[in-house]
Amino acid sequence: MTTAPNSSLSAAPRRADGRAPDELRSITITRGWSTQAEGSALIEFGGTKVLCTASLTAGVPRWLKGEGKGWVTAEYAMLPRATNTRNARESVKGKLGGRTHEISRLIGRSLRSIIDTKALGENTIVLDCDVLQADGGTRTAAITGAYVALADALAWAKENKLVARNAEPLLDTVAAVSVGIIDGVPMLDLPYVEDVRAETDMNVVVTGSGKFVEVQGTAEGAPFDRAELDALLDLALHGTSQLAEIQRRTLAGQ
Amino acid sequence: MTTAPNSSLSAAPRRADGRAPDELRSITITRGWSTQAEGSALIEFGGTKVLCTASLTAGVPRWLKGEGKGWVTAEYAMLPRATNTRNARESVKGKLGGRTHEISRLIGRSLRSIIDTKALGENTIVLDCDVLQADGGTRTAAITGAYVALADALAWAKENKLVARNAEPLLDTVAAVSVGIIDGVPMLDLPYVEDVRAETDMNVVVTGSGKFVEVQGTAEGAPFDRAELDALLDLALHGTSQLAEIQRRTLAGQ
Amino acid sequence: MTTAPNSSLSAAPRRADGRAPDELRSITITRGWSTQAEGSALIEFGGTKVLCTASLTAGVPRWLKGEGKGWVTAEYAMLPRATNTRNARESVKGKLGGRTHEISRLIGRSLRSIIDTKALGENTIVLDCDVLQADGGTRTAAITGAYVALADALAWAKENKLVARNAEPLLDTVAAVSVGIIDGVPMLDLPYVEDVRAETDMNVVVTGSGKFVEVQGTAEGAPFDRAELDALLDLALHGTSQLAEIQRRTLAGQ
Amino acid sequence: MTTAPNSSLSAAPRRADGRAPDELRSITITRGWSTQAEGSALIEFGGTKVLCTASLTAGVPRWLKGEGKGWVTAEYAMLPRATNTRNARESVKGKLGGRTHEISRLIGRSLRSIIDTKALGENTIVLDCDVLQADGGTRTAAITGAYVALADALAWAKENKLVARNAEPLLDTVAAVSVGIIDGVPMLDLPYVEDVRAETDMNVVVTGSGKFVEVQGTAEGAPFDRAELDALLDLALHGTSQLAEIQRRTLAGQ
Amino acid sequence: MTTAPNSSLSAAPRRADGRAPDELRSITITRGWSTQAEGSALIEFGGTKVLCTASLTAGVPRWLKGEGKGWVTAEYAMLPRATNTRNARESVKGKLGGRTHEISRLIGRSLRSIIDTKALGENTIVLDCDVLQADGGTRTAAITGAYVALADALAWAKENKLVARNAEPLLDTVAAVSVGIIDGVPMLDLPYVEDVRAETDMNVVVTGSGKFVEVQGTAEGAPFDRAELDALLDLALHGTSQLAEIQRRTLAGQ
Amino acid sequence: MTTAPNSSLSAAPRRADGRAPDELRSITITRGWSTQAEGSALIEFGGTKVLCTASLTAGVPRWLKGEGKGWVTAEYAMLPRATNTRNARESVKGKLGGRTHEISRLIGRSLRSIIDTKALGENTIVLDCDVLQADGGTRTAAITGAYVALADALAWAKENKLVARNAEPLLDTVAAVSVGIIDGVPMLDLPYVEDVRAETDMNVVVTGSGKFVEVQGTAEGAPFDRAELDALLDLALHGTSQLAEIQRRTLAGQ
Repeated sequence: MTTAPNSSLSAAPRRADGRAPDELRSITITRGWSTQAEGSALIEFGGTKVLCTASLTAGVPRWLKGEGKGWVTAEYAMLPRATNTRNARESVKGKLGGRTHEISRLIGRSLRSIIDTKALGENTIVLDCDVLQADGGTRTAAITGAYVALADALAWAKENKLVARNAEPLLDTVAAVSVGIIDGVPMLDLPYVEDVRAETDMNVVVTGSGKFVEVQGTAEGAPFDRAELDALLDLALHGTSQLAEIQRRTLAGQ
Repeated sequence: MTTAPNSSLSAAPRRADGRAPDELRSITITRGWSTQAEGSALIEFGGTKVLCTASLTAGVPRWLKGEGKGWVTAEYAMLPRATNTRNARESVKGKLGGRTHEISRLIGRSLRSIIDTKALGENTIVLDCDVLQADGGTRTAAITGAYVALADALAWAKENKLVARNAEPLLDTVAAVSVGIIDGVPMLDLPYVEDVRAETDMNVVVTGSGKFVEVQGTAEGAPFDRAELDALLDLALHGTSQLAEIQRRTLAGQ
Repeated sequence: MTTAPNSSLSAAPRRADGRAPDELRSITITRGWSTQAEGSALIEFGGTKVLCTASLTAGVPRWLKGEGKGWVTAEYAMLPRATNTRNARESVKGKLGGRTHEISRLIGRSLRSIIDTKALGENTIVLDCDVLQADGGTRTAAITGAYVALADALAWAKENKLVARNAEPLLDTVAAVSVGIIDGVPMLDLPYVEDVRAETDMNVVVTGSGKFVEVQGTAEGAPFDRAELDALLDLALHGTSQLAEIQRRTLAGQ
Repeated sequence: MTTAPNSSLSAAPRRADGRAPDELRSITITRGWSTQAEGSALIEFGGTKVLCTASLTAGVPRWLKGEGKGWVTAEYAMLPRATNTRNARESVKGKLGGRTHEISRLIGRSLRSIIDTKALGENTIVLDCDVLQADGGTRTAAITGAYVALADALAWAKENKLVARNAEPLLDTVAAVSVGIIDGVPMLDLPYVEDVRAETDMNVVVTGSGKFVEVQGTAEGAPFDRAELDALLDLALHGTSQLAEIQRRTLAGQ
Repeated sequence: MTTAPNSSLSAAPRRADGRAPDELRSITITRGWSTQAEGSALIEFGGTKVLCTASLTAGVPRWLKGEGKGWVTAEYAMLPRATNTRNARESVKGKLGGRTHEISRLIGRSLRSIIDTKALGENTIVLDCDVLQADGGTRTAAITGAYVALADALAWAKENKLVARNAEPLLDTVAAVSVGIIDGVPMLDLPYVEDVRAETDMNVVVTGSGKFVEVQGTAEGAPFDRAELDALLDLALHGTSQLAEIQRRTLAGQ
Repeated sequence: MTTAPNSSLSAAPRRADGRAPDELRSITITRGWSTQAEGSALIEFGGTKVLCTASLTAGVPRWLKGEGKGWVTAEYAMLPRATNTRNARESVKGKLGGRTHEISRLIGRSLRSIIDTKALGENTIVLDCDVLQADGGTRTAAITGAYVALADALAWAKENKLVARNAEPLLDTVAAVSVGIIDGVPMLDLPYVEDVRAETDMNVVVTGSGKFVEVQGTAEGAPFDRAELDALLDLALHGTSQLAEIQRRTLAGQ
């Protein structure tokens, strides 16, 4: 288990939980939480808890057979009482909601962006990200935790000879964070109480080398201008570089 | 967090995990695991981990309105990688399987059996039992943990005046355990490796006062006779009395 | 068509329909009701009428291929106006209810318990049990009638060389009956008016040789003690031995 | 139970079952087969057996409230093994097929055509037509049998004062029959073996007074000309007039 | 684009839109509206606009493989705001309505009636008929337009050698029109305002050589007699012969 | 009908269709294409054709009642043969895909961003965007066209007194465009052939006053850096300002 120091880089207006605008919540990654999966991590961004498992199996879906490439996909879901009031189960409703679809697709794209599918070979990895408790930023926690599960599943695959020892399916690391503008101030890593008040809300997915994988900004209140967009991107790069360091230390067993 | 002493009442043939035939696995109940729900417990029967939450809201379903009685129901589900190989999500398949339905109904009936719905008043309690990791006995762990979540939700309801202070909706406590016959020997609390080998498999739900709420015995291999049935019932009463004691200590904060 | 004598073994308090507590309702089995299926029976337990058909086809589901074993499964359903008030069709609602799933699984397990799947060979049998009229005990009537349909389908399979002439897929016979405690008195084979009043309700599936296949007891009202459980099991064995005799006579063409 | 005399009006080429081209199969209507429904009939057109029940309840669907008019609708379904090979249940597949929808709508329109919904008052009648065994002409048997169930449900409604004693919701009687051209010869009431060979297949719904309610003709093989159409309509009127007489005798208790 | 002369053959009572009872609405067929499909037509019957595309692919469904025959099927749908008030999407409701199923099947049967599936060879054609704007007669416009799309797809298939140059899969042309009785007067090609008032409503599908493929007459109000049926059939043959001529001119590029 | 001049602001490497990198495709908006909806527009971005209708009805969903605010939502769909190969209908599959959900939500958010729901009053607007032909950029065409339909529906609402004459529900205009990097060159308004080759793909939604409503950038190939992101945003602002002008001229009837 690796925990982020509650870094405090700025001295601006304090938030409800006492953080500086550019400060992450307390980040905890419990690697190997599941004894069943090839890779797993229980990741916590403050009160948000997401269980990420990586299931690696030999073979690929029918439409990809014979191309010598692997496949990585993701499924996101939330327990019915992860939130403050209970939501009906999607399995009971008999269909997935739009939000679930959207986030599952985002996680899948994010993790695929750092995978060399040729090096992975004809193996399939399913990343399940189940939100056990939700307090804002569940999709960004899911991406950040899924990377750790994925890395461990790939290590397992090498040990078990599903992936060649000299192959390197991982091209980089990847992490994600939410940023938003609240009362005119750009802030990092929004908990639920801030998220609902944000005028603009952005989820940013960044590689360990600092390049963008996804930028998804939405004006929840008033439309935003170029300067606000730039400030949010700066903040996101600051946050994801810290998350990348936490991921590195977690996988190094530090 | 309350942990059962690894009690060892008999000296018969040891099992794969070293237990005596009439010995429970290590039982752990983490009360209040969720900060969102009115009551919650993460219960572990060895490697089986089930998150139980109790969501209590004012009001009852339409068909019960105006009768002055409350309603208690349950939903059971399993994360896709709770098991050794991944199962497709029921939300993705778009329908609940028969096993899920069956267990949800069992949990609901079991908890309703110890509730005085008049004393509960027109309130609804939904018990969500989500299996985070599965190693046999998930439905019995779910019932046992759901009782703790339910008791805490009812305490919350009294504090918040949804239930009158002098009302007592809880008539008794309830716990459940699996028993089975393996190689001719009746055994208590079966992990997955034993469950698949059992000739007969029985789930027994018992109140704190030692009465039966449910007896569900199935001949997986050869049909069983009356003597075998009697031996399994003895073992189940032995196990559930220990679980009742662990529940009592958990709720007493011991 | 074989009809049970309205046996009357005891002289205890009479029931609404005049039966003694340990007396079955009038049982009628019309063998070969359907001219389409390989085996069929219309079974009546008093006002409960269930049409059971056995569809036998060569081949097994994909997951069982190449193991030299057969497969037996069951589907239970109720016509919308089988009951006193009309129920919406599950086909119109677009999903199966939990009760339907649960009973289908019970019937399937019960019939599989007396089948030697190696002797059956790579053949599949689907047992459809459709309740045309419901007056309590539909699942037990379904199991008892499905046995007759199954036996005839196996005879057909031998004649048509899908099963070898010297193979014997049937290990035993199987029948089922409901028992319950009403006003403190254990009673056999409950019609609807008794079923809704029962404190405890139990469905018991028993082989022709008197061994248990399934014991499913539920406290609908107060939990039950060991003595009550024992009395119910005695009654169930008494009832299923009579049903086994009726099945035997039906198949002997008596 | 009323049975049609095997009328034999013509001496043309005999069919597989020995009938003349313009001869109905043996028609049997067992009135009141169900003890649960307000009206019911088990109707047999040769080997085709359809259980028709009429469920009458006070009140109308929301969209019809306050207009002083009643509502009549129908649902058609087939048991999985009604046919020679088993079909998957629509409840298991989770959706109704086009054929089921189409026939349910046809039955509903046909029965509504002879109902005065003002005289019916704000009552709803659901006609369930479940095919227990299928040998061609199931939709026409369903309409013919549903009329008998409907008439009895209306008699029940008068006795129970849901419909005023002097109101007359029934404007006429209604019956249906299939006709088709086989090897160039127009034939009445096709069983399955003829239905699959027919070049043109027509279902005709006719009132007791000999007017058309529905004419549904389909060229299964070659398109048909006006003369063929006329011959088929003649045959259909001949058949439905006989069915109307059987309905009349059945309801008269003859 | 080919437009019908607003033919005016009779001088009877004028309709709301000024047409004679036996007069078609203005008919427009825009051939090749879609640049994606192998064949396409946007067909307009007055205010009714249906986009018909024909998708032709090599191969047939599994159940038809190896028989040397092709397959033609159709799917009909309506945009949510094709009508005067918005209807919920069937994709959002998660199931097709009965009307959609019924019309899709009608279109499929109609087009298959003029296809020689042997000459088509093992190719599949899917005809999609999407109603962009609805003003009565959508199914008849769909059949009439689908014929044009189908003819063009077959021409494409010959050019692309999926169908042999000397093969002739088209046996005839096919068109459809609605007819109905309004205030006792038989009328041709009903717009929505007439359709809802019709006592009897009939859709008739006729080949270019004047033979019937489908005759679907329904008494919406009072049942109809043989003379009324005959008048409607006359009118339908009159209308479809004009439509056949418009189709011919459209495909001839006139 | 308003058509954009094929503006050509730069002289960089020409694309397959001859455009400059910063040049829009030919844009055509046919206002009032539907005679049924309160507002409608058929919008074309080159070969992409989307029919946008705005359905405005009095009243709001239950969860919004009594708050004096209106509701705007959107549904996006594609005809099965809008694309080069046919896709199965979502109505037939029985569920919406993730992509459909995602785009519907994006369109809804985009249009809501320029609506003053208080000024709209308790009215609901559903924007249906159905892709009749797809050649890249369908979601951006949908947003741009939906704005025109929305504006006309609001004008209608004023005329029909559902919205007060002095209320102004429209806060601004909104349009959207896709941008991407192909072979290292940032390009505007990608057709399908470019879209599949893009390393980075971004959809940008911008108000008439030049502020961002949505920025959704995805690295389809290699992750992108800050400079690339900036170049894409510049291009998007350039394109959306032109689209805003076309919208303005269309609504002015120029």
